[in-house]
Amino acid sequence: MSDRMKRRELLGAVAGAAAATTLSACGKNDEAPKGVQPPVQSSETFHWKMVTTWPKNFPGLGTGANRLAELIEQLSGGRITVKVFGAGELVGAFEAFDAVSRGTAQIGHGGAYYWKGKIPAAPFFSAIPFGFTPDEINAWFYKADGVKLWHEAYKPFGLIPFPAGNTGPQMGGWFNKEINSLEDIKGLKMRIPGFGGEVLKRAGGIPVTLPGGELFQAMQSGAIDATEWVGPYNDLAFGFYKVAKYYYTPGWHEPGSAMEAIVNADAFARLPKDLQLIVENACKIVNLEMLAEYTARNQQALQTLVEKHGVQLRRFPDDVLKKFRELTLEVIADVTSSDPMAAKVWASQKAFLARVRKWTNLSELSFLKARDEM
Amino acid sequence: MSDRMKRRELLGAVAGAAAATTLSACGKNDEAPKGVQPPVQSSETFHWKMVTTWPKNFPGLGTGANRLAELIEQLSGGRITVKVFGAGELVGAFEAFDAVSRGTAQIGHGGAYYWKGKIPAAPFFSAIPFGFTPDEINAWFYKADGVKLWHEAYKPFGLIPFPAGNTGPQMGGWFNKEINSLEDIKGLKMRIPGFGGEVLKRAGGIPVTLPGGELFQAMQSGAIDATEWVGPYNDLAFGFYKVAKYYYTPGWHEPGSAMEAIVNADAFARLPKDLQLIVENACKIVNLEMLAEYTARNQQALQTLVEKHGVQLRRFPDDVLKKFRELTLEVIADVTSSDPMAAKVWASQKAFLARVRKWTNLSELSFLKARDEM
Repeated sequence: MSDRMKRRELLGAVAGAAAATTLSACGKNDEAPKGVQPPVQSSETFHWKMVTTWPKNFPGLGTGANRLAELIEQLSGGRITVKVFGAGELVGAFEAFDAVSRGTAQIGHGGAYYWKGKIPAAPFFSAIPFGFTPDEINAWFYKADGVKLWHEAYKPFGLIPFPAGNTGPQMGGWFNKEINSLEDIKGLKMRIPGFGGEVLKRAGGIPVTLPGGELFQAMQSGAIDATEWVGPYNDLAFGFYKVAKYYYTPGWHEPGSAMEAIVNADAFARLPKDLQLIVENACKIVNLEMLAEYTARNQQALQTLVEKHGVQLRRFPDDVLKKFRELTLEVIADVTSSDPMAAKVWASQKAFLARVRKWTNLSELSFLKARDEM
Repeated sequence: MSDRMKRRELLGAVAGAAAATTLSACGKNDEAPKGVQPPVQSSETFHWKMVTTWPKNFPGLGTGANRLAELIEQLSGGRITVKVFGAGELVGAFEAFDAVSRGTAQIGHGGAYYWKGKIPAAPFFSAIPFGFTPDEINAWFYKADGVKLWHEAYKPFGLIPFPAGNTGPQMGGWFNKEINSLEDIKGLKMRIPGFGGEVLKRAGGIPVTLPGGELFQAMQSGAIDATEWVGPYNDLAFGFYKVAKYYYTPGWHEPGSAMEAIVNADAFARLPKDLQLIVENACKIVNLEMLAEYTARNQQALQTLVEKHGVQLRRFPDDVLKKFRELTLEVIADVTSSDPMAAKVWASQKAFLARVRKWTNLSELSFLKARDEM
């Protein structure tokens, strides 16, 4: 028993007799219903560390992790404190998963697709090519099997994952030359990770994996011909407009990338129920707010890129997109044929996607086409 | 001073001396940083009433109000209780605004466009024809001037509004005959409220205002020729497929209707800071969850409507949509010319919409077109 718990017992002994009379007087001007139990709230405090896959304070992503820590502290009235570490401060960016798994930190913030080497199903919880929009993946997460399957996939690692952010639809990337046909993909050296990189490879390109901080120089030196990153908000900050002329749409490979919080299962189990709910729901708030931030900042940054820096916007040709779609299904078939958990997750996602796409086409796509000319 | 506050003082007197040694031991296995203050949380309780504009437990909307009450209770550890009243239980649906304004209830849940008679700017905080998608209005609310302007508009009524739900893009409505040109709008008696109704009127139609519960019979008896309601999820439950053959898209008049929570300003001021944050953030969680629910349920209901009930999907002709767009700008010009607050809100929304539309077209619209054929 902690000293703080002893303190609670002390309170109980002293104040217990007065409790019954206290109840009907509480709440000042707001009428108190009869027979309501007084709130029993542990005042035990928890001091958590958060590791992230983002550079400290990185706009949108790193600041989203900061916001999650702030919300957990605020909503818990300070009963949970969260100290945030940027990538490399406590552990390296891609060591966040292991650090939370072994309890070096109690919570982490990152993207599920970073863990595909450990968990082949992981990318399905962030973004797959031609997959969900942000609103669709949230529907699958919260109102279908998404979060349930995600918990199942991470359970062997002692981790509890929660959706905790979304970048919105990303851009297709920065290119030094125009892409007019599949011929232009052949031999193209492009920084593009995950399933998208595998698709590019099967289309004849050369996918390269590089951390964000090295992309500008790799483009400048000609080590790579093209790179994707996120969208206007983050891409403007990296200055890619100085080293590439064409900015391509759509972000076929990441149409609405979900971010994650991962919580050490033992640390979570030690929290009283109300604090568990606060952690879980703080993640939902960051999920909402991060998408709002990306939507608001992307439109501002897009205007700057086009009007101030003269960036040329281009759309991938239909036959290139068609080929990418076909290859995506091949890549997914390969991943799911060798991993039962990935197969289970894709079965759920595929069925949901098939139906929700019809609704999105009928509603959002139909509306956006009509509004386009207003 | 309440009895409960006295109880806190009692705790302070008894446990005060032990506090310094308590701090470093709390949190069990999680390391406690030095110099952290113990959380000081009021245990005072507040008993709130929530009035709503929805029939009790109405799917999506009424259940969203229930969820908001549940979240406030859970996240506050029971320090706020919220008793939910459906429309007509404590006050009528459209008396919710006044009831919360005068403090009969501490909180309300509804849609801002219901209050346009009192506040001409109100519809801009829910949905206007050819306006924001759900993700766009959230960006304007949280990361631009939206919530700030909303607070300003409701302040004279002693109310603090928060976004608290979204239905997603709605449908264009149920029609007994096909709409092939503007000629088919002339003389059409349609249930469509708000700015959408005004647009229909200027296009030669006859807008009718009726509560949801009367729509089925009005369609069946031929008293009206057409009706909009929400989308597949809610429209299936009302059985409109039995009395109308054609289901039209897009929902040009409500492309992403935001719902609201309104809080009595005095009741809010009486809450300690951490409970104020819990109320504000519980609204954000419902905002996220309600859209996820509508997205998940709409796609299921759409399948049922089309495959089981043989509903015919139709799209409004381009020239009809074009005329509706033009008339929308006329309606908005009239509203804003006579009300300075509406003019201020529209100025903010118009500027944001002009830019964010470009981003949405480049990202989401471009992606949805590419995915459409997958």
